[in-house]
Parts: sequence; C-alpha cells; structure tokens
Amino acid sequence: MLIDDLSAALPADRLVRDPDVLRGFAHDEAEWAPHALPAVVVRPHTAEEVQTVVRSCLRHGTPLVTRGAGTGLSGGANAVEDCVVLVTDRLRAIKEINEQERLAVVEPGVVNDDLRAACAERGLWYPPDPASSPWSTIGGNVATNAGGVCCVKYGVTRDYVLGMQVVTGTGELVRLGRRTAKGVAGYDLAGLMVGSEGTLGVITEVTLRLRPARAAERTVAGYFDTTVAAGEAAAAVAACGILPSALELVDRHCLAAVDAWKNMGLSTDANVVLLGRTDAPGAQGEHEASVLLECFEKAGATWAAQSSDQAEADALFAARRLAYPALERLGPVLTEDVCVPTQAVPEMLARIDRAALRHDVVIANIAHIGDGNLHPLLVTPPGDETARKNAQAAFEDIISGALDLGGTVTGEHGVGLLKQPGLTRELGPAVLELHRAVKRALDPQQIFNPGKVFHEGTPA
Amino acid sequence: MLIDDLSAALPADRLVRDPDVLRGFAHDEAEWAPHALPAVVVRPHTAEEVQTVVRSCLRHGTPLVTRGAGTGLSGGANAVEDCVVLVTDRLRAIKEINEQERLAVVEPGVVNDDLRAACAERGLWYPPDPASSPWSTIGGNVATNAGGVCCVKYGVTRDYVLGMQVVTGTGELVRLGRRTAKGVAGYDLAGLMVGSEGTLGVITEVTLRLRPARAAERTVAGYFDTTVAAGEAAAAVAACGILPSALELVDRHCLAAVDAWKNMGLSTDANVVLLGRTDAPGAQGEHEASVLLECFEKAGATWAAQSSDQAEADALFAARRLAYPALERLGPVLTEDVCVPTQAVPEMLARIDRAALRHDVVIANIAHIGDGNLHPLLVTPPGDETARKNAQAAFEDIISGALDLGGTVTGEHGVGLLKQPGLTRELGPAVLELHRAVKRALDPQQIFNPGKVFHEGTPA
Repeated sequence: MLIDDLSAALPADRLVRDPDVLRGFAHDEAEWAPHALPAVVVRPHTAEEVQTVVRSCLRHGTPLVTRGAGTGLSGGANAVEDCVVLVTDRLRAIKEINEQERLAVVEPGVVNDDLRAACAERGLWYPPDPASSPWSTIGGNVATNAGGVCCVKYGVTRDYVLGMQVVTGTGELVRLGRRTAKGVAGYDLAGLMVGSEGTLGVITEVTLRLRPARAAERTVAGYFDTTVAAGEAAAAVAACGILPSALELVDRHCLAAVDAWKNMGLSTDANVVLLGRTDAPGAQGEHEASVLLECFEKAGATWAAQSSDQAEADALFAARRLAYPALERLGPVLTEDVCVPTQAVPEMLARIDRAALRHDVVIANIAHIGDGNLHPLLVTPPGDETARKNAQAAFEDIISGALDLGGTVTGEHGVGLLKQPGLTRELGPAVLELHRAVKRALDPQQIFNPGKVFHEGTPA
Repeated sequence: MLIDDLSAALPADRLVRDPDVLRGFAHDEAEWAPHALPAVVVRPHTAEEVQTVVRSCLRHGTPLVTRGAGTGLSGGANAVEDCVVLVTDRLRAIKEINEQERLAVVEPGVVNDDLRAACAERGLWYPPDPASSPWSTIGGNVATNAGGVCCVKYGVTRDYVLGMQVVTGTGELVRLGRRTAKGVAGYDLAGLMVGSEGTLGVITEVTLRLRPARAAERTVAGYFDTTVAAGEAAAAVAACGILPSALELVDRHCLAAVDAWKNMGLSTDANVVLLGRTDAPGAQGEHEASVLLECFEKAGATWAAQSSDQAEADALFAARRLAYPALERLGPVLTEDVCVPTQAVPEMLARIDRAALRHDVVIANIAHIGDGNLHPLLVTPPGDETARKNAQAAFEDIISGALDLGGTVTGEHGVGLLKQPGLTRELGPAVLELHRAVKRALDPQQIFNPGKVFHEGTPA
C-alpha cells in the first residue's frame, strides 16, 4: 500500500489522513471545477522527502497533485480520485538573497509577498505580483507562470526564473537552468517547467532573478463611462511609445464590493476607473505621467488627473487587488482570464458586455488592461442553478470572442480544468499532440497531475 | 532517392548540388569543429517548401541541418555525412511590423540588423544585438538564443520571442506561442525551441516582441592595467544598484587587431578598456554615468571619463564588434563563451590569464562583462599544429574554470559540437537523459541536426 510506504519512509507529521482536513486540500479557488477527495495529503519538509513521495507514487502508480496555497483559479490543483496531494507549505525557506548576483534561492512554499519583503530589505525587487501575492506561493506562481500588475513593463514569472531543482518523472532530483545572468547550455527545461501546472515534475527549489529597487511610482487615474472607452484609452497607451509600470482597469461593481467589505471610501460616480503608473524617475516620470493623462483624456475620460495623494492612489490599487475576494463574498464567481492584442481590447470589452446582456449575468471587470489581459468576473447568486448555467454560457462566449480576436484563453491563470475546451480550440490537434509527446517523455508513468491542462490521450 | 523526391517537389533553383558550392555550406565559423559535405543544399522560399523538405527527409531517414548565415561559433550548423543542409536565406521577408502591438513577424532568414533598421524607422527597437548582427539571421539568433551587448539590461533573444511557426519532427507545420503580451495556454514549446540549435524542428517564422525606441546613450570609458582589475570594476557595477545598458570589455590585442585592419585610430596605452553605457534619460542618465565612473575609478582605472565625443565612443563599440573578424585575419581563433556569476568575473579572468601562460597561447579578451559572459579568443598562427593543441588544452582549462566557479560552458553561442564535453559535465547524466527524452519526443526519427548539442544515445 502506498500509505504504508509513505508512513514507513516519512515522519508521522508529514501525513494527513483526517477526511475533514483532506477536504480542505481537495480543490483550489476555481468555481465549479470537478475535484475528488485525495487519499492522503503529504507535507514534506525537504527536497529529499519530496523525492520519497514521488518514488512512492511511481512504485504504486498513484497520481500526485502538487499544491501551493491553493489560490489557483482554473482547478489546476484540484485533487483527483485516490491521489496524493503534496502540499509545499513546509518548504518555506528563503535560502539565499544575493545582492551581488541579484538573485534569490527559495523553496516553493515561500509566499510571494514574504519574498518581496525580504528582497526590499536588501534594496532588491522581485517584480511578479499576482493579486494573490499575500497568500500565493512562489512554487504555484512558477507552476502557472503567474503575472500581475507589473507585467506591462516588467514581464511575468517566467522572466525571473533562472533555474530550479525538480523531482522528475523517473524520481530523480535534478537541477535545471543556472545561476548566471545568461546561459544556453542545452534545452531550456527550466523554462518548460514554468507554466506546466505540476504536470511535468515537482519543483523543490527555485532560483529567481531580481532587479534593483525602483523609484517611487506616480499614479494617473481616469474615470470613464464605459469599459469600452477605458479600453480605447489603454489601446492608445500601448501605442504611445512609453511603458507604464502599471495599467489597470477596475469597474464600479468591484469598487462597490470592496467598499462594502472594507469601507475604504471608494464610492465614486465613475463606471470604470483606469489606473496608470510610471516608475520612471524625475522629469521622465513627469513626462510619462502627462502622456498617460493625455491618452486618458483623448479617449473620453470624464475625469482624469495625476494623483497628488499617495494614500488615495494606493487605496485604488488595493481595491483592484481585493476585487476578487470582495465579489466572492456575494456568491460564486467564475473568473475569466483571456488575453487579446492590445488594439482588440475595446472590442473584447464590448463582447464581454454583450455576453453579460445575452446571458443575463452580472459581469464585473478588472483587467491588466495594458497587457490586454482581462478578468471579467461572472458573479452569481449563491445556489442559483440557472445563474450558474448562464454564467458558464457567458464564459464560453468570452473564450470564443478572445480566440476570434487573435487572443489566448489564459493570460496568467493557467489552463487547469476550466480552460481545457478553450485550449483544445486554441492549440489545435497537432500542437496538442506535441504536448502529449512532451508529457510522455518527462512523465512516462503519467503520475503528475493527470487530467490537467490537456488530456493525455493514448500514444499516437 | 531523396534527391529525386526533392527535384520532383521543388523548383530547380531551390537545390544546390555543385560540390564547390556545397563546400561553402559545410560548416559555420567554429574553428576545428568536424564537418562533412552535405548531399544537397536546399534553399526553400516558403514555409510549405520547408515542410516538403522535412517530409522528404522523414521519408528517407536523411539528416537535416538547418542553417542561417553560418556565423555560429560552436559548429551547430556543421553538415553531417550525406545530410540535407536547409539554408534559410531565401526566407527573408519582414512580414509585419506592428507599432500598436509592438511586435514583428519575420521569416527566419531576415538579417538581424535589417530587422533592427526596419523597426527603428517606426520608432521601435528590437534589442538583441549579437556582434554578428550585420550578417546573422533571426532564425539563427533564435536557434542559439543569441545575446549581445544589450543583454545586461534588456535580456536575450528568448525574452523577445512571442511565438513561431515550425515544421515539426512529424512533418507538421504548426504555430507555437502567441501574439499577445501574455499567455500561459499549454507548455512553453516556443520557448523550448529557442536555443535548441535546430535539433527539434525547423523554424519558418518568428513573432518577436519589440520595445519603444530608447533615449540616446551616454558612454563611460575606463582604462585598466589588467583584465582582473577591469573585472573588479564590473563586479562593482553589478552590485551598485543600477542597470547599465552596456558593460563591455575589450583588451589591447583586440584593439590593435581592429586598428591594424580598419585604421580607426584606436591605439591606446591601456591594456584593457571597459565601456559602460546608460540609456536612462535626463538627470537619471547623468547619475548612472557618474556611478559607472565611480565604480571604474575605485577599481583602479588608470584613466576614466564620460565620453564627450560620440564618434569616439561609437568607434570603441565598433572595435568591440569587429574584434573577432579582426583577430581571425591573423590566424585560426578558438572562441570561448563561458558565463560566470558576476562576482566570480575577476577570478575567471585571472584563470584565463593563467591558462594562457600555462599553455603558451595568445588569448585576447572581449567580454559582455556585465553579464559575466566572457569571450577569451585563443589566437593561433596559421598551420601551427602545436599551437592548435595548446589552444585546445587552454580551452578545456577555461571550461573547467567556469564550471568550478558556478558558471556555464556557454552563455550565448550554443553547444554545437565544441561544447559537448563541457555540456556533459555541466548537466550530468540525469539531466542529459531528460534532454534525450525531449529530443525523442519531438524528433522521433532523429532527423534534425543529429549529433549536435548532445549525443542522442540509445533509449533508456
């Protein structure tokens, strides 16, 4: 029995078998994604213990689902029948922050914000900042190639992963990638692991590139009557020749929900708020702020200004970050994550509006709009079956719209379970077959997170 | 016969069989790397013609070596016995430069500098700038994940590849990656192709991320008595909290060789020149230039100043770019490409000096020193067998030194043939086996550039 194996090989406190506790590890935050109860939850303390777990799973042919904080929004960490769920929450050491090489070496369970704080103490900056950063872990961020507010100027998690330690599909503990600034020795297998959602191995350590701390940001806020008008402002910014350090959209649904929860005094007459930031220092920062302002005004902002009140600007960004949990208080929320070319953003936002009307669904909008990465949030009343079906139909409409406009079904949340039909349409059969070939090559016994991202199918 | 197949399927001018011409396509610029005469050279004009070639090779089990401009320095494009060499020089369309989305779509045979010029006309910038940029192609740059002077601030080719069209190991013509700013739909197979040196498929089109044009650069030059002192200045820059837009080392061997060739008036009393640049605008640029100057002076520069003469600064950068061809005029040059942690640069430069003494080899040095990416150039007199053996022994010493210091055997040139022993040491058997598994998965008939990067070996 697998359990006997694990019990014999690991200290007793590594294993969780209490069904009530297991239930807490059965799924992530994706709404209405299928999940099962795991046979056991394992909380290893070292890479070698992870290797022990993988080898046990290989011996017994048991599926292994790796899980960070469980903040995923696509079902990628959902347990499958009789699987082992490996939780990384005890692998939480920041092993090294190296000012000279500007890199950090961390275990996968380190929380994003904790790493960012530790870097900041040393005058360094780890840019990737998903909205889940107070809770989500670096391992999960790497597994989904997480994005965030910074991406419009500073890129995604992938751009900061130099190397990693991984337990492979044959149970080996290996190092991929490097510690140097550059390197082309062999295939970019570390890069391949990023965004593979736990289907190719278990990450036990990550080496991350850091940047020097940056200048304070200036914030420009604009109010718009419609998401489409705000989208036109964002398209103008994308074409204006500057790189803002943030360009975010928040609509009144989100602001009202956050305000109802946190009483931040956010209520405003605006239907849609656009938040631009620049971190260019000095006169260049002034210039960039004025360009953002001009883009907002030309696109029809009803009000726009460079914020002179840092607390007010921070509150608006905090509201953007809290939008998802605030809306979840009201009922189940289905979260979209399409990403379209920036010039297609106004049309995509119009299609989202039409999907809301067509299917009679309340759709709140937040967006990393500077990247064309939209997060329509489909809000439903608790326990309302019709509303659920309507939301799911609107979800499919939005995916179709994004693909029609040359976009992708997932900008930063990952495929997990919810985006599998969309992925099949986006990639097509030949590219899916390449995925299957890679999966078979690196996970020959198909134990890692089976059924996620794509169906393995049978060998061609 | 393969030739009959190709002759029947392609217009006659696509095929080259004249042995004198074939010889010109038998190898790249790697010194003393083994190569053979190809059976035929094919110059397809379209992606579909590339697919025809791949399918013919699959039918006949014929090895296929893809080649751009042949400026590689590791033997990655060297022909193997009876292979087809597919040259991308007729696939040279810039299909799209999109100011709004800041991206370009190009065929693989487009020359790097031609793309950069076309982007500049539209206020855009394609950063990757290998020294070969006047000749090397985007396809070759992608296949080797080429670097250049810009990398210290702006990263490598990988950081600019959004997507591509590829003919696969089963002869399918597919699209990988995307056109959007972000995207995590499936495995990062486009990223996996970058740096795979033609061993996983044939790239027929690349979608590249662009940046807005940047501010004019300021140059700070410093003279040093030894490479080690210059290395200490570079280590200080890496730890100083600013990101220079360039940090290059050129020694007197290179300056003298370029001057003897181009008569640029470069002769100087310095043994080693360090060239720093900043492209930060305005007061920030002034500040960064002064920080560079301070780092140079504290490390013992015999002279250092911010250049007030743009022509002079450009001449020094041109000399750095011309160093390799200038030295090659003097005799065979074995080019190293190790990359070490920035704090290990002074020690690595000392080891290079010791290798030169120990093996009685003239070693000229250029380096992307801000990245720790060193290019010791081992210069030998033409036809001197003893000098060749000494150079090859020094080459191995340098590789060992880099691995000892936590570095990699190749920062940007690729593994090809010359770095295979080093790669084996760097990766170890378990990671090499992962490479073989990926290779078998994506090139099941093992037709793509066989014997390059690593030996396929037999299935485990």
